[in-house]
Amino acid sequence: MILDKIKNPSDIKKLSLNEKKILSEEIRDIILKTVSENGGHLASNLGVVELTIALLSYLDLDKDKIIWDVGHQCYTYKLLTGRKDKFNTLRKTGGISGFPRSNESNYDFFDVGHSSTSISVALGMARAISIKKEKKKVVAIIGDGALTSGLAMEALNDAGISKTNLIVILNDNKMSISKNTGGLSQFLSHLRTRKTYVKLNSIIRKIVTNIPFIGKYLYKIVAYIKKRIKGLFIKNMYFENIGYTYLGPVNGHNISDMINILKSTNNIDGPILLHVITKKGKGYLKSELEPNKYHAVSPFDINKGLINKHNETYSDIVGNTLVKLAKNDKRIVAVTAAMAEGTGLSNFKKHYPKRFYDVEICEEHALTMSSGMAKEGMIPFVAIYSTFIQRGYDEIIHDICLNDCHVVLLVDRAGNTGNDGETHHGIYDLSFLKTIPNLVIMAPKDAFELYLMIKFSINYHHPIAIRYPKGNIININENKKILLGKSEILKEGRDITILAVGKMVQRSLNISHKLSNDNIDAEVINIRFIKPFDYDTVIQSFNKTHLLVTIEDNDYEYGFAEIITKYINQDKVKSFGYPDTFISHGNISDLEKKYHLDEDSLYNEIIDFYQKNKQV
Amino acid sequence: MILDKIKNPSDIKKLSLNEKKILSEEIRDIILKTVSENGGHLASNLGVVELTIALLSYLDLDKDKIIWDVGHQCYTYKLLTGRKDKFNTLRKTGGISGFPRSNESNYDFFDVGHSSTSISVALGMARAISIKKEKKKVVAIIGDGALTSGLAMEALNDAGISKTNLIVILNDNKMSISKNTGGLSQFLSHLRTRKTYVKLNSIIRKIVTNIPFIGKYLYKIVAYIKKRIKGLFIKNMYFENIGYTYLGPVNGHNISDMINILKSTNNIDGPILLHVITKKGKGYLKSELEPNKYHAVSPFDINKGLINKHNETYSDIVGNTLVKLAKNDKRIVAVTAAMAEGTGLSNFKKHYPKRFYDVEICEEHALTMSSGMAKEGMIPFVAIYSTFIQRGYDEIIHDICLNDCHVVLLVDRAGNTGNDGETHHGIYDLSFLKTIPNLVIMAPKDAFELYLMIKFSINYHHPIAIRYPKGNIININENKKILLGKSEILKEGRDITILAVGKMVQRSLNISHKLSNDNIDAEVINIRFIKPFDYDTVIQSFNKTHLLVTIEDNDYEYGFAEIITKYINQDKVKSFGYPDTFISHGNISDLEKKYHLDEDSLYNEIIDFYQKNKQV
Repeated sequence: MILDKIKNPSDIKKLSLNEKKILSEEIRDIILKTVSENGGHLASNLGVVELTIALLSYLDLDKDKIIWDVGHQCYTYKLLTGRKDKFNTLRKTGGISGFPRSNESNYDFFDVGHSSTSISVALGMARAISIKKEKKKVVAIIGDGALTSGLAMEALNDAGISKTNLIVILNDNKMSISKNTGGLSQFLSHLRTRKTYVKLNSIIRKIVTNIPFIGKYLYKIVAYIKKRIKGLFIKNMYFENIGYTYLGPVNGHNISDMINILKSTNNIDGPILLHVITKKGKGYLKSELEPNKYHAVSPFDINKGLINKHNETYSDIVGNTLVKLAKNDKRIVAVTAAMAEGTGLSNFKKHYPKRFYDVEICEEHALTMSSGMAKEGMIPFVAIYSTFIQRGYDEIIHDICLNDCHVVLLVDRAGNTGNDGETHHGIYDLSFLKTIPNLVIMAPKDAFELYLMIKFSINYHHPIAIRYPKGNIININENKKILLGKSEILKEGRDITILAVGKMVQRSLNISHKLSNDNIDAEVINIRFIKPFDYDTVIQSFNKTHLLVTIEDNDYEYGFAEIITKYINQDKVKSFGYPDTFISHGNISDLEKKYHLDEDSLYNEIIDFYQKNKQV
Repeated sequence: MILDKIKNPSDIKKLSLNEKKILSEEIRDIILKTVSENGGHLASNLGVVELTIALLSYLDLDKDKIIWDVGHQCYTYKLLTGRKDKFNTLRKTGGISGFPRSNESNYDFFDVGHSSTSISVALGMARAISIKKEKKKVVAIIGDGALTSGLAMEALNDAGISKTNLIVILNDNKMSISKNTGGLSQFLSHLRTRKTYVKLNSIIRKIVTNIPFIGKYLYKIVAYIKKRIKGLFIKNMYFENIGYTYLGPVNGHNISDMINILKSTNNIDGPILLHVITKKGKGYLKSELEPNKYHAVSPFDINKGLINKHNETYSDIVGNTLVKLAKNDKRIVAVTAAMAEGTGLSNFKKHYPKRFYDVEICEEHALTMSSGMAKEGMIPFVAIYSTFIQRGYDEIIHDICLNDCHVVLLVDRAGNTGNDGETHHGIYDLSFLKTIPNLVIMAPKDAFELYLMIKFSINYHHPIAIRYPKGNIININENKKILLGKSEILKEGRDITILAVGKMVQRSLNISHKLSNDNIDAEVINIRFIKPFDYDTVIQSFNKTHLLVTIEDNDYEYGFAEIITKYINQDKVKSFGYPDTFISHGNISDLEKKYHLDEDSLYNEIIDFYQKNKQV
């Protein structure tokens, strides 16, 4: 294998063009095989194999910096920067991450997982380098989808006037995770046909040379017009207009063309925008044909491809419930930020295309736009992953909650999300949402309760958030009527009170049954409403049991536990959840064990706590 | 006065053009007089007097909607929509707000105070109106400065393809709060000279008519070229390109031109961008000449204008300290989001222009860009108002803290900020920052401690936030060395422990002296570090006094109090701060009284608490 020759990234420079082409095929095979076994991001990674090889052929990574946007396209880069031997551990507990992680390699210059940060980061680096008067190159690689996000556009504007030698590579695969729909996307498609200019120029030349004896007049006109047209076509183009030297478009699967155009940047001062056209999913026909489906995948059979059947998830419940309710309630609209499939809303889109809004990777706009819709009588359901809703924090506070808008936040992938790691766990939302005035926060214990909560949210005419986990649904088959701010006692007991949120309710019930065998009679309360909090029920229970346990799929230092524990003496309280730190990737269950949130650890800790503290 | 004739907004339609001109002068006088007495936003309000009159001449506010961006230009609108008689109470406790507030008038359609939300909100409304098949007009008015923010650009793209009849009015006054510097600003200045097209067209016509007998050839060329040029100049213009019908630029002080161009929109389908050129501060020479200085002002003498002298603020301490430290430390850079003057950094800009970055109203980019600079060895000090830093929440978590970047967040205007109201109080930052892993959070009790904390932050090589209040500095003249995570016992006592944050420390000391007269010996602890929290010192004190009081200039439900109270029994703890609600405008001291945070209320409440709970 040629890949075996690459001991460090600079070895790529020694390869012939032909070897590089073979290398790209080897890498594609490894990526496809590994992702089919471990799950991961497929289409985005298959799309940038040649681009990565070209970049490493051009740059010197011992000083130059590459900043990947989102980071879901870093597999080739990882294979070529020392992680070939560990690549089979991709995304596994204790294995290498699916995203750039600086604790994994010195060649990962910035930890990332959220979209649209790369230009900002790279510009900051370029500015620092310019202050230090060093000679390092900085390259940001950003997809056309990520470019539609506000942060990326802010950075694009600022970098344009920065005079730094920053190279922004626009990895244009004509789609983000879902299909781009906004104005900027249309604009990009205009750019792709920039050759019109060349064509127009030759048409003029043809016409002119066909006209005899007009002499200097025509010459003047044509020279003038050519200058203007060029000025218009090139200078007035958006990227040139805001300060960039625009290069491209170049075929992102032609290694030699890309190396040549990268080399040509050596002679250009100031920021450069290099437009590269790539094909998402390149090299694996199934993912070329359905790049969205193959964006982020679970393990699958390479020959058969992804099987459409999957176990029902909470996202499915959301999608199906909204489809059902929207039939007779024309006020219901659904909003997503480039995650129609992930959030289960594809079906809603099919049924009610005119009441469905995919605003691209624009969480902020999705939220504020929804507040406007609510003011005119709609009931927007905005489905965003917990970790991405951080991007719209001010919009939730300032637009939705201050304006008391009837917007329903569907906080998907809340809690531990497993293999994507630090940047994707949704274990902070209870902490940062609970501090927002006017917001009601709910978490369902099972699928049917999620359904009930969605129904409840329609008749509650104020801001409301429902947070639910990744993964397959469960059903506990016990659901009292949902009342604002009321928790649900699922099992009465006299010895100890267990307060549980969301997916932690089921295991609390199981634990309570085990505890019975130990002659401990536990009361289990499904919190349901993190806000408003049902102090009455909880304090009443505590007054009976004198011992309280809180279990949440969230940071326990600043999450729901804090709300109640501040009322209770600490030798009477023990809180479970995630500690106040960033949580790495791994299987959900491995991570739960690590943080004592699996049923066995919880059981043991609770027994221990009970024996130490119970005044008999 | 013509203004007296305006009982409701539609009365404006009955005025002649001349009366409207007189009205605009009357309004200018009232705004100038009121702001000079009450303080408020001057330059932005003087800039849109005619624009507001034109809009109310065109729209029917009983069905149509106007969405002001930021809302700091709504004074004319308030005068013309029923708040003339209360206008002298502007921004005062119990008076009308300086921003749109729906609880004040049905004509205020959306509460606002932060920048760049208007297009999103208006688009949401327009979409809802289109679903309901109603005939209402929706107009968003946004400044050129606000347009540079990511949220606005996200919305601009989405609205462009929305096919809704939304009118976006670009109120182009060639500056935001500080001078615009980014690529988009340059682009807008190109737009302003759009007449080039007209000129070019006439030049071509001139040349062509001067050429004899070329016949059909030239005709063909010219027709072709004209079409192309027009296509390029108009269709390829950015706004047209992303889906808008672009109208303007029109003089924003010519009422009749504006009404005409507004009427012309009746025949246009789809989103419209109307480019209006206004002069900030128009009509008061001093503010025309220095619109930044007159953007947001304290009371002043109209004849003399603003006096440059002001009492020293915490922002000044920040600016002066950084100027001093940056002299010998080339790693120090300063970053602001269009608030160089407000955050005290103007002086830094003067001294170190190459290490100063004003990124316009782009809090997100300011933060992520800083993380990149930190990765290359700089120490970025990012000064943002507490309430605006909400806009960059994900960037603090995902870019600065996950990447463990040595970035110093200067959280200015933390706590109660007084007369701007709900959208400007900084009473949530302790709540939402404390939940972020890796972040150290400090609050100084006085000016010298702020200086010490800035120095401390230079040698702490991780993310760190320093939050400090609006207003004049105080000096307590006692400062122990700052040690990570260590609070400061300012007065020892045996009866009760008072934990105070930031500006609450001084009044706690004063109260402790008063309590001595009541024979209560209070211990006063300056918390200094909200995170990491000094449990040792606090618990030790509590074990001595058995009674704890917490005082913070922040929501007390979810702020610093929560950290400690969860450890302590509730009959031993009483927490002060702001309740879990949005806080309206008023004088800082009036608001403090309302929420029992003034010295007297605190004293009385503490005495009461002591008497009820102390086990003697």
